Amino acid sequence: MSLDGFIAKPDGDISFLNQVELEGEDYGYSKFINTVDTVILGRKTYDKILSMGVEFPYGDRQVFVITRNPRPDSGKTIFISGNLADLVRSLKNQPGKHIYCDGGGETINLLLQEYLIDEMTVSVIPVLLGEGIRLFGQNGFPEQKLQLISSKSFEKGLVQLHYIRT
Amino acid sequence: MSLDGFIAKPDGDISFLNQVELEGEDYGYSKFINTVDTVILGRKTYDKILSMGVEFPYGDRQVFVITRNPRPDSGKTIFISGNLADLVRSLKNQPGKHIYCDGGGETINLLLQEYLIDEMTVSVIPVLLGEGIRLFGQNGFPEQKLQLISSKSFEKGLVQLHYIRT
Repeated sequence: MSLDGFIAKPDGDISFLNQVELEGEDYGYSKFINTVDTVILGRKTYDKILSMGVEFPYGDRQVFVITRNPRPDSGKTIFISGNLADLVRSLKNQPGKHIYCDGGGETINLLLQEYLIDEMTVSVIPVLLGEGIRLFGQNGFPEQKLQLISSKSFEKGLVQLHYIRT
Repeated sequence: MSLDGFIAKPDGDISFLNQVELEGEDYGYSKFINTVDTVILGRKTYDKILSMGVEFPYGDRQVFVITRNPRPDSGKTIFISGNLADLVRSLKNQPGKHIYCDGGGETINLLLQEYLIDEMTVSVIPVLLGEGIRLFGQNGFPEQKLQLISSKSFEKGLVQLHYIRT
Protein backbone atom coordinates (compact mmCIF):
# COMPACT_ATOMS: atom_id res chain seq x y z
CA MET A 1 0.00 0.00 0.00
CA SER A 2 0.98 3.67 -0.22
CA LEU A 3 1.92 5.25 3.12
CA ASP A 4 -1.62 6.66 3.23
CA GLY A 5 -3.17 3.22 2.86
CA PHE A 6 -4.16 2.93 -0.80
CA ILE A 7 -3.57 -0.04 -3.13
CA ALA A 8 -4.69 1.80 -6.27
CA LYS A 9 -5.86 5.17 -7.51
CA PRO A 10 -9.67 5.64 -7.71
CA ASP A 11 -9.69 4.28 -11.29
CA GLY A 12 -7.67 1.17 -10.38
CA ASP A 13 -4.33 2.57 -11.62
CA ILE A 14 -1.44 0.86 -9.82
CA SER A 15 1.43 2.49 -11.69
CA PHE A 16 2.79 3.84 -8.39
CA LEU A 17 4.16 0.32 -7.89
CA ASN A 18 6.61 0.90 -10.75
CA GLN A 19 8.76 3.04 -8.49
CA VAL A 20 9.80 -0.01 -6.46
CA GLU A 21 10.44 -2.31 -9.43
CA LEU A 22 13.97 -3.64 -9.38
CA GLU A 23 15.51 -6.30 -11.63
CA GLY A 24 15.92 -9.52 -9.64
CA GLU A 25 14.00 -8.28 -6.56
CA ASP A 26 10.62 -9.94 -5.98
CA TYR A 27 10.27 -8.75 -2.36
CA GLY A 28 9.98 -12.32 -1.13
CA TYR A 29 7.01 -13.19 -3.34
CA SER A 30 8.27 -16.49 -4.83
CA LYS A 31 9.38 -17.76 -1.44
CA PHE A 32 6.03 -16.75 0.07
CA ILE A 33 3.80 -18.16 -2.67
CA ASN A 34 5.47 -21.55 -2.24
CA THR A 35 3.94 -21.71 1.25
CA VAL A 36 0.46 -21.23 -0.27
CA ASP A 37 -1.86 -23.73 -1.94
CA THR A 38 -5.06 -21.67 -2.10
CA VAL A 39 -5.63 -18.08 -3.19
CA ILE A 40 -8.67 -15.88 -2.55
CA LEU A 41 -9.17 -12.60 -4.31
CA GLY A 42 -11.87 -10.19 -5.26
CA ARG A 43 -13.17 -9.97 -8.80
CA LYS A 44 -11.65 -6.53 -9.32
CA THR A 45 -8.18 -7.72 -8.32
CA TYR A 46 -8.58 -10.77 -10.57
CA ASP A 47 -9.60 -8.69 -13.60
CA LYS A 48 -6.77 -6.24 -12.87
CA ILE A 49 -4.23 -9.07 -12.99
CA LEU A 50 -5.66 -10.39 -16.29
CA SER A 51 -5.59 -6.89 -17.79
CA MET A 52 -1.90 -6.52 -17.01
CA GLY A 53 -0.86 -9.20 -19.48
CA VAL A 54 1.60 -10.71 -17.00
CA GLU A 55 2.09 -14.38 -16.17
CA PHE A 56 -0.72 -15.58 -13.84
CA PRO A 57 0.98 -15.09 -10.46
CA TYR A 58 -0.62 -18.08 -8.70
CA GLY A 59 0.64 -20.88 -10.95
CA ASP A 60 -1.60 -23.94 -10.72
CA ARG A 61 -2.87 -23.21 -7.22
CA GLN A 62 -6.54 -23.40 -6.33
CA VAL A 63 -7.94 -19.87 -6.84
CA PHE A 64 -11.30 -18.58 -5.60
CA VAL A 65 -12.56 -15.32 -7.08
CA ILE A 66 -15.26 -13.57 -5.05
CA THR A 67 -17.89 -12.06 -7.33
CA ARG A 68 -21.56 -11.19 -7.50
CA ASN A 69 -21.65 -12.54 -11.07
CA PRO A 70 -20.01 -15.99 -11.22
CA ARG A 71 -18.31 -17.08 -14.45
CA PRO A 72 -17.52 -20.61 -15.65
CA ASP A 73 -14.46 -22.21 -14.01
CA SER A 74 -11.18 -21.36 -15.70
CA GLY A 75 -8.71 -24.18 -15.00
CA LYS A 76 -8.26 -24.21 -11.23
CA THR A 77 -9.89 -20.78 -10.89
CA ILE A 78 -13.41 -20.95 -9.46
CA PHE A 79 -15.81 -18.00 -9.24
CA ILE A 80 -17.97 -17.94 -6.13
CA SER A 81 -20.74 -15.68 -4.93
CA GLY A 82 -21.54 -17.46 -1.66
CA ASN A 83 -20.50 -16.61 1.87
CA LEU A 84 -16.78 -15.89 1.91
CA ALA A 85 -16.39 -16.44 5.65
CA ASP A 86 -17.98 -19.90 5.43
CA LEU A 87 -15.69 -20.81 2.55
CA VAL A 88 -12.58 -19.74 4.48
CA ARG A 89 -13.65 -21.55 7.65
CA SER A 90 -14.21 -24.69 5.61
CA LEU A 91 -10.81 -24.37 3.88
CA LYS A 92 -9.08 -23.83 7.21
CA ASN A 93 -10.50 -27.10 8.47
CA GLN A 94 -8.89 -28.99 5.60
CA PRO A 95 -5.24 -30.01 5.62
CA GLY A 96 -3.03 -27.94 3.36
CA LYS A 97 -0.67 -25.02 3.08
CA HIS A 98 -1.51 -21.37 3.66
CA ILE A 99 -4.57 -19.66 2.21
CA TYR A 100 -3.54 -16.34 0.68
CA CYS A 101 -5.95 -13.43 0.26
CA ASP A 102 -4.54 -11.04 -2.32
CA GLY A 103 -5.67 -7.48 -3.11
CA GLY A 104 -7.59 -5.46 -0.57
CA GLY A 105 -10.70 -3.44 -0.02
CA GLU A 106 -13.92 -5.38 0.28
CA THR A 107 -12.49 -8.90 0.42
CA ILE A 108 -9.98 -8.16 3.19
CA ASN A 109 -12.70 -6.28 5.07
CA LEU A 110 -15.08 -9.22 4.96
CA LEU A 111 -12.38 -11.51 6.37
CA LEU A 112 -11.35 -9.06 9.09
CA GLN A 113 -14.98 -8.72 10.15
CA GLU A 114 -14.93 -12.44 10.98
CA TYR A 115 -11.39 -12.55 12.47
CA LEU A 116 -10.32 -14.82 9.63
CA ILE A 117 -6.93 -13.24 8.87
CA ASP A 118 -4.24 -14.82 11.07
CA GLU A 119 -1.17 -13.36 9.44
CA MET A 120 -0.48 -10.43 7.16
CA THR A 121 2.35 -8.95 5.15
CA VAL A 122 1.98 -5.29 4.25
CA SER A 123 4.42 -3.60 1.90
CA VAL A 124 4.54 0.17 2.35
CA ILE A 125 5.51 2.01 -0.84
CA PRO A 126 7.20 5.42 -0.35
CA VAL A 127 4.43 7.54 -1.84
CA LEU A 128 1.28 9.37 -0.74
CA LEU A 129 -1.50 8.81 -3.28
CA GLY A 130 -3.98 11.19 -1.64
CA GLU A 131 -7.02 9.19 -2.77
CA GLY A 132 -7.93 5.78 -4.09
CA ILE A 133 -8.92 2.25 -3.13
CA ARG A 134 -7.92 1.39 0.43
CA LEU A 135 -6.16 -1.81 1.51
CA PHE A 136 -8.30 -1.75 4.64
CA GLY A 137 -11.75 -0.89 3.34
CA GLN A 138 -14.18 1.73 4.49
CA ASN A 139 -16.77 -0.50 6.12
CA GLY A 140 -15.10 -1.11 9.47
CA PHE A 141 -14.27 -4.25 11.41
CA PRO A 142 -13.55 -5.02 15.05
CA GLU A 143 -10.25 -3.91 16.63
CA GLN A 144 -7.56 -6.60 16.42
CA LYS A 145 -4.19 -6.64 18.13
CA LEU A 146 -1.21 -7.69 16.08
CA GLN A 147 2.29 -8.89 16.83
CA LEU A 148 5.13 -7.64 14.65
CA ILE A 149 7.12 -10.61 13.36
CA SER A 150 9.52 -8.67 11.17
CA SER A 151 10.11 -5.37 9.47
CA LYS A 152 12.42 -5.16 6.48
CA SER A 153 13.35 -2.21 4.30
CA PHE A 154 14.55 -2.51 0.71
CA GLU A 155 16.76 -0.45 -1.58
CA LYS A 156 13.85 1.27 -3.35
CA GLY A 157 12.34 2.41 -0.03
CA LEU A 158 9.68 -0.28 0.26
CA VAL A 159 9.17 -1.41 3.87
CA GLN A 160 7.66 -4.85 4.38
CA LEU A 161 5.81 -5.38 7.66
CA HIS A 162 4.90 -8.89 8.75
CA TYR A 163 2.36 -9.43 11.53
CA ILE A 164 0.36 -12.19 13.15
CA ARG A 165 -2.92 -11.60 14.93
CA THR A 166 -2.65 -12.22 18.67
CA MET B 1 -1.02 5.35 13.48
CA SER B 2 -2.59 1.89 13.57
CA LEU B 3 -1.64 -0.34 10.64
CA ASP B 4 -4.96 0.63 9.05
CA GLY B 5 -4.15 4.34 9.27
CA PHE B 6 -6.03 5.62 12.31
CA ILE B 7 -4.70 7.91 15.05
CA ALA B 8 -7.74 7.52 17.30
CA LYS B 9 -11.04 5.71 17.57
CA PRO B 10 -14.11 7.63 16.29
CA ASP B 11 -14.64 9.18 19.76
CA GLY B 12 -11.01 10.32 20.06
CA ASP B 13 -9.92 7.40 22.26
CA ILE B 14 -6.17 6.78 21.88
CA SER B 15 -5.78 4.03 24.45
CA PHE B 16 -4.39 1.73 21.73
CA LEU B 17 -1.13 3.64 22.23
CA ASN B 18 -0.79 2.08 25.70
CA GLN B 19 0.30 -1.19 24.13
CA VAL B 20 3.61 0.35 23.02
CA GLU B 21 4.33 2.17 26.29
CA LEU B 22 7.68 1.12 27.71
CA GLU B 23 9.53 2.57 30.68
CA GLY B 24 12.48 4.64 29.44
CA GLU B 25 11.51 4.40 25.74
CA ASP B 26 10.30 7.65 24.16
CA TYR B 27 10.67 6.45 20.55
CA GLY B 28 13.04 9.30 19.74
CA TYR B 29 10.63 12.05 20.81
CA SER B 30 12.94 14.09 23.07
CA LYS B 31 15.74 13.99 20.50
CA PHE B 32 13.32 15.00 17.76
CA ILE B 33 11.55 17.79 19.66
CA ASN B 34 14.92 19.43 20.29
CA THR B 35 15.20 20.04 16.53
CA VAL B 36 11.88 21.91 16.60
CA ASP B 37 11.08 25.50 17.61
CA THR B 38 7.53 25.80 16.31
CA VAL B 39 4.59 23.42 16.65
CA ILE B 40 1.35 23.41 14.66
CA LEU B 41 -1.61 21.34 15.67
CA GLY B 42 -5.34 21.16 15.24
CA ARG B 43 -7.68 22.21 18.01
CA LYS B 44 -8.84 18.65 18.59
CA THR B 45 -5.29 17.39 19.11
CA TYR B 46 -4.59 20.33 21.43
CA ASP B 47 -7.66 19.68 23.56
CA LYS B 48 -6.84 15.97 23.62
CA ILE B 49 -3.39 16.72 25.04
CA LEU B 50 -4.84 19.02 27.71
CA SER B 51 -7.44 16.41 28.66
CA MET B 52 -4.74 13.80 29.26
CA GLY B 53 -3.30 15.64 32.25
CA VAL B 54 0.26 15.05 31.07
CA GLU B 55 3.11 17.55 30.94
CA PHE B 56 2.66 19.88 27.94
CA PRO B 57 4.85 18.04 25.39
CA TYR B 58 6.14 21.15 23.58
CA GLY B 59 7.87 22.91 26.48
CA ASP B 60 8.18 26.63 25.81
CA ARG B 61 8.13 26.35 22.02
CA GLN B 62 5.94 28.59 19.89
CA VAL B 63 2.67 26.69 19.39
CA PHE B 64 -0.04 27.51 16.84
CA VAL B 65 -3.44 25.87 17.33
CA ILE B 66 -5.65 25.83 14.24
CA THR B 67 -9.26 26.49 15.16
CA ARG B 68 -12.47 28.01 13.86
CA ASN B 69 -13.04 29.59 17.29
CA PRO B 70 -9.87 31.36 18.47
CA ARG B 71 -9.19 31.62 22.21
CA PRO B 72 -6.96 34.11 24.06
CA ASP B 73 -3.23 33.34 23.88
CA SER B 74 -2.01 30.92 26.54
CA GLY B 75 1.69 31.61 27.17
CA LYS B 76 3.41 30.88 23.86
CA THR B 77 0.33 29.08 22.51
CA ILE B 78 -1.55 31.13 19.91
CA PHE B 79 -4.94 30.20 18.46
CA ILE B 80 -5.37 31.03 14.80
CA SER B 81 -8.26 30.76 12.37
CA GLY B 82 -6.58 32.23 9.32
CA ASN B 83 -5.04 30.49 6.32
CA LEU B 84 -2.80 27.71 7.56
CA ALA B 85 -0.82 27.43 4.33
CA ASP B 86 0.03 31.14 4.39
CA LEU B 87 1.17 30.86 8.00
CA VAL B 88 3.45 27.92 7.23
CA ARG B 89 4.93 29.58 4.14
CA SER B 90 5.66 32.66 6.22
CA LEU B 91 7.25 30.59 9.03
CA LYS B 92 9.39 28.71 6.51
CA ASN B 93 10.79 31.99 5.25
CA GLN B 94 12.00 32.88 8.72
CA PRO B 95 15.23 31.51 10.18
CA GLY B 96 14.74 28.84 12.83
CA LYS B 97 14.58 25.18 13.57
CA HIS B 98 12.01 22.71 12.27
CA ILE B 99 8.28 23.36 12.25
CA TYR B 100 6.46 20.30 13.62
CA CYS B 101 2.87 19.50 12.76
CA ASP B 102 1.49 17.09 15.35
CA GLY B 103 -1.73 15.08 15.20
CA GLY B 104 -3.39 14.28 11.91
CA GLY B 105 -6.59 14.45 9.99
CA GLU B 106 -7.63 17.89 8.78
CA THR B 107 -4.46 19.80 9.63
CA ILE B 108 -2.09 17.36 7.91
CA ASN B 109 -4.45 17.25 4.94
CA LEU B 110 -4.44 21.02 4.53
CA LEU B 111 -0.64 21.04 4.53
CA LEU B 112 -0.36 18.14 2.08
CA GLN B 113 -2.77 19.89 -0.27
CA GLU B 114 -0.22 22.71 -0.54
CA TYR B 115 2.93 20.49 -0.61
CA LEU B 116 4.01 22.01 2.71
CA ILE B 117 5.21 18.85 4.44
CA ASP B 118 8.87 18.21 3.61
CA GLU B 119 9.60 15.43 6.05
CA MET B 120 7.50 12.99 8.03
CA THR B 121 7.89 10.38 10.74
CA VAL B 122 5.11 7.82 10.96
CA SER B 123 4.98 5.32 13.83
CA VAL B 124 2.97 2.21 12.96
CA ILE B 125 1.40 0.58 16.02
CA PRO B 126 0.74 -3.19 15.76
CA VAL B 127 -3.05 -3.04 15.82
CA LEU B 128 -5.98 -2.74 13.43
CA LEU B 129 -8.55 -0.31 14.81
CA GLY B 130 -11.14 -0.92 12.10
CA GLU B 131 -12.54 2.61 12.25
CA GLY B 132 -11.61 6.03 13.59
CA ILE B 133 -9.87 9.30 12.79
CA ARG B 134 -7.34 8.94 9.99
CA LEU B 135 -3.78 10.27 10.06
CA PHE B 136 -4.19 11.11 6.38
CA GLY B 137 -7.64 12.64 6.20
CA GLN B 138 -10.51 11.87 3.90
CA ASN B 139 -10.45 14.98 1.72
CA GLY B 140 -7.66 14.03 -0.64
CA PHE B 141 -4.47 15.76 -1.73
CA PRO B 142 -2.16 15.48 -4.73
CA GLU B 143 0.10 12.44 -5.11
CA GLN B 144 3.55 12.98 -3.57
CA LYS B 145 6.62 10.80 -3.93
CA LEU B 146 8.61 10.11 -0.79
CA GLN B 147 12.10 8.88 -0.06
CA LEU B 148 12.59 6.47 2.84
CA ILE B 149 15.31 7.80 5.14
CA SER B 150 15.06 5.12 7.79
CA SER B 151 12.88 2.38 9.16
CA LYS B 152 13.29 1.20 12.72
CA SER B 153 11.40 -1.40 14.70
CA PHE B 154 11.12 -1.44 18.49
CA GLU B 155 10.62 -4.09 21.14
CA LYS B 156 6.87 -3.48 21.48
CA GLY B 157 6.33 -3.91 17.74
CA LEU B 158 6.15 -0.23 16.84
CA VAL B 159 7.78 0.51 13.47
CA GLN B 160 8.95 4.06 12.87
CA LEU B 161 9.15 5.18 9.25
CA HIS B 162 11.00 8.36 8.36
CA TYR B 163 10.53 9.94 4.93
CA ILE B 164 11.35 13.11 3.05
CA ARG B 165 9.30 14.38 0.12
CA THR B 166 11.26 14.22 -3.14
